[in-house]
Amino acid sequence: MNQAAAKIAEAAAPDGPYERLLAIVADDMERVNAEILARMQSEHTTLIPQVAAHLIGAGGKRIRPILTLAAARLCGYEGRAHIVLAAAVESIHNATLLHDDVVDESGKRRGRPTAHTVFGNKPSVLVGDFLFARSFQLMVETGSIDVLRVLSDAAAVIVEGEVLQLAAERDLSGGEEIYLKVIRGKTAALFEAAAQAGAMVAGAPEAQVAALAAYGDALGVAFQIVDDLLDYGGAASTIGKNAGDDFREGKATLPVLLAFARGDERERAFWRRVIERREQHPGDLDQALDILRRRDALADTMARALGHVDRARRALDAFPPSALRSAMADMADFVASRAH
Amino acid sequence: MNQAAAKIAEAAAPDGPYERLLAIVADDMERVNAEILARMQSEHTTLIPQVAAHLIGAGGKRIRPILTLAAARLCGYEGRAHIVLAAAVESIHNATLLHDDVVDESGKRRGRPTAHTVFGNKPSVLVGDFLFARSFQLMVETGSIDVLRVLSDAAAVIVEGEVLQLAAERDLSGGEEIYLKVIRGKTAALFEAAAQAGAMVAGAPEAQVAALAAYGDALGVAFQIVDDLLDYGGAASTIGKNAGDDFREGKATLPVLLAFARGDERERAFWRRVIERREQHPGDLDQALDILRRRDALADTMARALGHVDRARRALDAFPPSALRSAMADMADFVASRAH
Repeated sequence: MNQAAAKIAEAAAPDGPYERLLAIVADDMERVNAEILARMQSEHTTLIPQVAAHLIGAGGKRIRPILTLAAARLCGYEGRAHIVLAAAVESIHNATLLHDDVVDESGKRRGRPTAHTVFGNKPSVLVGDFLFARSFQLMVETGSIDVLRVLSDAAAVIVEGEVLQLAAERDLSGGEEIYLKVIRGKTAALFEAAAQAGAMVAGAPEAQVAALAAYGDALGVAFQIVDDLLDYGGAASTIGKNAGDDFREGKATLPVLLAFARGDERERAFWRRVIERREQHPGDLDQALDILRRRDALADTMARALGHVDRARRALDAFPPSALRSAMADMADFVASRAH
Repeated sequence: MNQAAAKIAEAAAPDGPYERLLAIVADDMERVNAEILARMQSEHTTLIPQVAAHLIGAGGKRIRPILTLAAARLCGYEGRAHIVLAAAVESIHNATLLHDDVVDESGKRRGRPTAHTVFGNKPSVLVGDFLFARSFQLMVETGSIDVLRVLSDAAAVIVEGEVLQLAAERDLSGGEEIYLKVIRGKTAALFEAAAQAGAMVAGAPEAQVAALAAYGDALGVAFQIVDDLLDYGGAASTIGKNAGDDFREGKATLPVLLAFARGDERERAFWRRVIERREQHPGDLDQALDILRRRDALADTMARALGHVDRARRALDAFPPSALRSAMADMADFVASRAH
């Protein structure tokens, strides 16, 4: 087991759904990690592998390439193209992380200083571009123009989601509709494309490709809603040490949007001040949590997430029962379980 | 004629080789411009077309898409796939310009303030990513996996060239070899891919595809050498108002590398101070020009460029004589003529 795989294993609890799914695709995943490391090399310069290794060496759960591998296997695939495809999917993800950190001016990623704080903005922008280019080179190796269509479409949607977030993240008037567009872009589009393209390289029939696309989309939407909920301490609203970031940055995530929609004039004025104008004083986060609880915003955010979890599970009904299908269905619960 | 086409026409002298080639592909080029404008639209946000229009509206000679169109026509192509392909090529170029301006902290591009000074770094990074994603969506529409291979390979080489330049641009020890790698990456790789992919969508035989790849590469190398020479006033070293930028930024371009290689100890110490350490005083640019003339560095840089011009012309010998072949051959002279 290589270092990256060891980190994934370490990050996970011993017998949860994530580990069960990872175990089923473990051999494939080792090949994906080897592929990613090999493709970071550059004939011309050592800076690219340095920056990329800083990000990739920090670990992460590799959920997106796992989706690709699992989807291909679920469709009975026994070839090799899903390995380079999964490496391509993870490279797109890593490219967006490098650029996101520059755009958001983030200081930490996966528990360590972000690449742009260590190497500067220039290498982060350029190495992000490099990973993006490499991911398309990897996709070309699958030989499938359909795969390239799905993933280049996803790449455009991802960036559109980020631009939309740049314009709309403090805007309380957009409501759930804009919020869903943003999270489909920033998270669900790549989950969806990862699972869908896995089915495609397997040569699966259209109905199965569509089912896995729906599964990936539902999983991604649930994942991001839960992420946003966790920033307010989850459904039980017990704020952890890293929570409250979205509040401080004035992000109009789902809990806030639900509370805003249900709030009286005094509450709406509060949300406009702390989110839209980002004028925050000591005690505001506590007051926000108080309103969120009073308006059932945290519980209902969780309910929304569970709706998507259910949608993910049902999408897999297109496949006959198997240990793999069961592990993929349970992954949806795992995504939501983080918030309990 | 739309606005962009009008700007190109305006920028050009009335009857030179550039105009002759542009006239041959004028109808195609109008379609390319319309395609580019249409693909800048985004369902979600107005920021993307705004930023993209700022860059694209500034004009530029569109040399790369012209190469794609001309190459396809030279191979006898009568279909439509070269239009989206040329739009893809120009979108890759525009994506790299947006990111370059962020990385280089440039203040001006095509005579107007750069996008990142008007809109900020975040939109420039993200809209660059968007144009990159769009370019791959356009390539997918050609249906050719070979085209996608050539252009994703080129994209990787472009970024590697920029990273290499980041690391090596003030390094006098790399000499002509590293310099050629950098300019192949930053300029010639996309010229080459633009012409090569044009031949590919036309379904041209391997020898013609290779000939057009060689033509594009030679044209791109000549173009960049001449650009670097112009920064010292061209072969006649009559410094224009925008010249001297590379010197002030401490870039080890070909004229400097040739002079450094031929210099005595005193001259080498001068170049190390002004280029590698970037310690510059009033009068240094004049002294640099004096040394460059004395060491024949400007004339020999021009001779190198003319060698590549000749290589570009000869590559076209793979095709029977025609007005188009002649215009493409003359384009190589045009590229070099800028420096006389």
